[in-house]
Amino acid sequence: MMAVRLIQKKRDGETLTAAEIGEFFGAYIRGEVAEYQMAAFLMAVHFRGMVPGELSALVATLLASGSTADLTSVPGIKVDKHSTGGVGDKVSLVLAPLVASLGVPVPMMSGRGLGHSGGTVDKLESIPGFRTDLTMAQYRAQLERIGCALISQTAEVAPLDRRLYALRDVTATVESIPLIASSIMSKKLAEGIDALLLDVKLGNGAFLPEPEQAKQLARTMIAIGRGHGKRVVALLTAMDRPLGFAVGNALEVAESVRALRNEGPPDLHSLVLVQAAEMLVLGGVTPDTSSGQAAAAAALADGRAAACFQRIIAAQGGDPGVVDDPGLLPQAPVERVLTTARDGWVGAMDVRAIGHAAVALGAGRHTLGAAIDQAVGFHITAKPGEPVARGTVLARVLARTEPGAAAAILELARAIPVVDAPPPAALPLVVGRLTE
Amino acid sequence: MMAVRLIQKKRDGETLTAAEIGEFFGAYIRGEVAEYQMAAFLMAVHFRGMVPGELSALVATLLASGSTADLTSVPGIKVDKHSTGGVGDKVSLVLAPLVASLGVPVPMMSGRGLGHSGGTVDKLESIPGFRTDLTMAQYRAQLERIGCALISQTAEVAPLDRRLYALRDVTATVESIPLIASSIMSKKLAEGIDALLLDVKLGNGAFLPEPEQAKQLARTMIAIGRGHGKRVVALLTAMDRPLGFAVGNALEVAESVRALRNEGPPDLHSLVLVQAAEMLVLGGVTPDTSSGQAAAAAALADGRAAACFQRIIAAQGGDPGVVDDPGLLPQAPVERVLTTARDGWVGAMDVRAIGHAAVALGAGRHTLGAAIDQAVGFHITAKPGEPVARGTVLARVLARTEPGAAAAILELARAIPVVDAPPPAALPLVVGRLTE
Repeated sequence: MMAVRLIQKKRDGETLTAAEIGEFFGAYIRGEVAEYQMAAFLMAVHFRGMVPGELSALVATLLASGSTADLTSVPGIKVDKHSTGGVGDKVSLVLAPLVASLGVPVPMMSGRGLGHSGGTVDKLESIPGFRTDLTMAQYRAQLERIGCALISQTAEVAPLDRRLYALRDVTATVESIPLIASSIMSKKLAEGIDALLLDVKLGNGAFLPEPEQAKQLARTMIAIGRGHGKRVVALLTAMDRPLGFAVGNALEVAESVRALRNEGPPDLHSLVLVQAAEMLVLGGVTPDTSSGQAAAAAALADGRAAACFQRIIAAQGGDPGVVDDPGLLPQAPVERVLTTARDGWVGAMDVRAIGHAAVALGAGRHTLGAAIDQAVGFHITAKPGEPVARGTVLARVLARTEPGAAAAILELARAIPVVDAPPPAALPLVVGRLTE
Repeated sequence: MMAVRLIQKKRDGETLTAAEIGEFFGAYIRGEVAEYQMAAFLMAVHFRGMVPGELSALVATLLASGSTADLTSVPGIKVDKHSTGGVGDKVSLVLAPLVASLGVPVPMMSGRGLGHSGGTVDKLESIPGFRTDLTMAQYRAQLERIGCALISQTAEVAPLDRRLYALRDVTATVESIPLIASSIMSKKLAEGIDALLLDVKLGNGAFLPEPEQAKQLARTMIAIGRGHGKRVVALLTAMDRPLGFAVGNALEVAESVRALRNEGPPDLHSLVLVQAAEMLVLGGVTPDTSSGQAAAAAALADGRAAACFQRIIAAQGGDPGVVDDPGLLPQAPVERVLTTARDGWVGAMDVRAIGHAAVALGAGRHTLGAAIDQAVGFHITAKPGEPVARGTVLARVLARTEPGAAAAILELARAIPVVDAPPPAALPLVVGRLTE
């Protein structure tokens, strides 16, 4: 009776008390609320949303379902960064060692790729030997020693969130802002952070493409973080084209290594500096973002950031040699090139289709737990608005097989149009910044 | 993947094709769509509704999940009546024999009481020996012989509807107009009818209290019926007070018997005549409702209706003696009277609370399959707007135990207020009539 009453309350747009949220999800954990009741509740949330009090109670319940890392033994203000994900978004791989090299501890637990977007853990695991399954004790010890750990979410972190996500995935209740926000924030709050930088993507390669939705998601996450006493800054950034050139796990690690050596693509370099500056300010290391950007640029130029990444790799069992020689990363045997057959301009891209093409090639997965091919992917050198002439290379495909490569070339040709006139301007790299 | 895609389509307000509805519910029947997926879908329907094409496909799927009675061997236009239910609504018990006595076959499959409202099958079963569990063959044979059968929905009728109802009951998706309408109409269409009279209740004792909701439900059911080639008329009638005086199974049978002998309460008598006239016109026996009312009044006055009820009772194994002597029905041992302690007027009643008080006394059930006490209930003689003086009897409680009676008296005293000034006018007995 309690379950039906609370589902009905949410369905009818009434506000649940914190006690009621705790009661409902607590009963679900104990198996006293059935999966079909939770499914009906989640769909009602999709339509009715959640007010801040409900969200805060939900996040508390998610957190309490597992354990929260205690990082009081790690000196400094611990700052992490979370991206809502996209295609070619390898910022975390550059940003975490860079910021850590400047004295801000970065406790980063990441997820795997799902759907059209990649995941930091998958990318890191393409480094030979690299392990992301550290225990909480190993995670804390590495943060104390090196100031950064890049691990996968442990089974101890918000297990209720994993169960809810699996249910949302099969009941069409994934795209709900309060559910997305509470899921992300419960995992981030469990890391033991003091402050958080959010990179909320918008554009057709983003999880929530519309600016208004992206802003609402950012504001919801900021409110949750502040409610838990954390400082949170959110950047709204462009995902109407891939970030950098590389798409695919080992390819993105190689590009990240180049960025750490100050040889990365300009858009990746710029976004890393902007985000590093925010984290340095949040971490109390630089007084403002302009001095933060300068400090970050220096650490990329003088090798401190790259050296820090080598220390992290070595600490987590990987081969630090990949930073000097990305050729040690897995390599795909087949390479095919997409060129344009005509003069014109690179048009607006279908970034989501590019992501799906990478999944089809083997770089990603459609279901949790599926295997991936670390070596395959794309180098997409074309950017929207660029003039091109017949024969210009738009992209390279790195594939396991010839048929795979041929299929990917066809998909990319559709997703990267060449048009007669300059297309409408692409989004600026950083569209906005929110602190509340 | 199909299930998620179709849930998402409904969630986003898109229209499903008939093939998609058939595919989704068909997969559910086969166990390929999980209960939690159906729960999410039903909640999405609650918010998005269903367009006529979706509804028609759903009704077809519900019907096809079981078997439909073939009544071509029964001569005449078969007409049934369905009420959306309320407190004290015993019209079917009077109406079916009355209309059948005038030559219109009435194939009536009814349900049991659930929640605050009673059910025709429960009431009939308070007649000693009366059986409602006829087979399809017995049902048809009795219709051929007597022109009326009053049975419970067999297991062969729309089994998918039963499964869906059980799920809706525990996921707060009961109060959805398309789901209510398709559930009712699939069961009525399975009876083998040619035409249908709908009695859609409104007022605080109705399932959907608001006039607009009641109208929408009526229109939705009419559209479904017409889509299946049936003539359908809907009356919107008052449920802001109990109908007649009796509330409770055997008590309502006794009152129905009095009504069949032309000695019933005035409101019950009037509503029976209005509904009988509609059914006689639908059945092609009288040209218009005024001649229909006259014919019905005559059949009540001269004993034809009562005699028909005796034939039905005898055919279904019951004791037809109850029509002459209602004292043969189960009797409750304890009687308590509620009187008013002050002069004034009977105010607006909380009819739903009266229904719940009857359930608490044992006359109804909160969960399918629970046992009921046939003898207990109320005689509520007060009607809203009537002047009363200190000591006037408002209601009598017939109970199994003294504490049960005392609790019911307290509930009734709350639900039947006596106020200082005449209350706003109650609803007219018949609020409206719809044919499309």
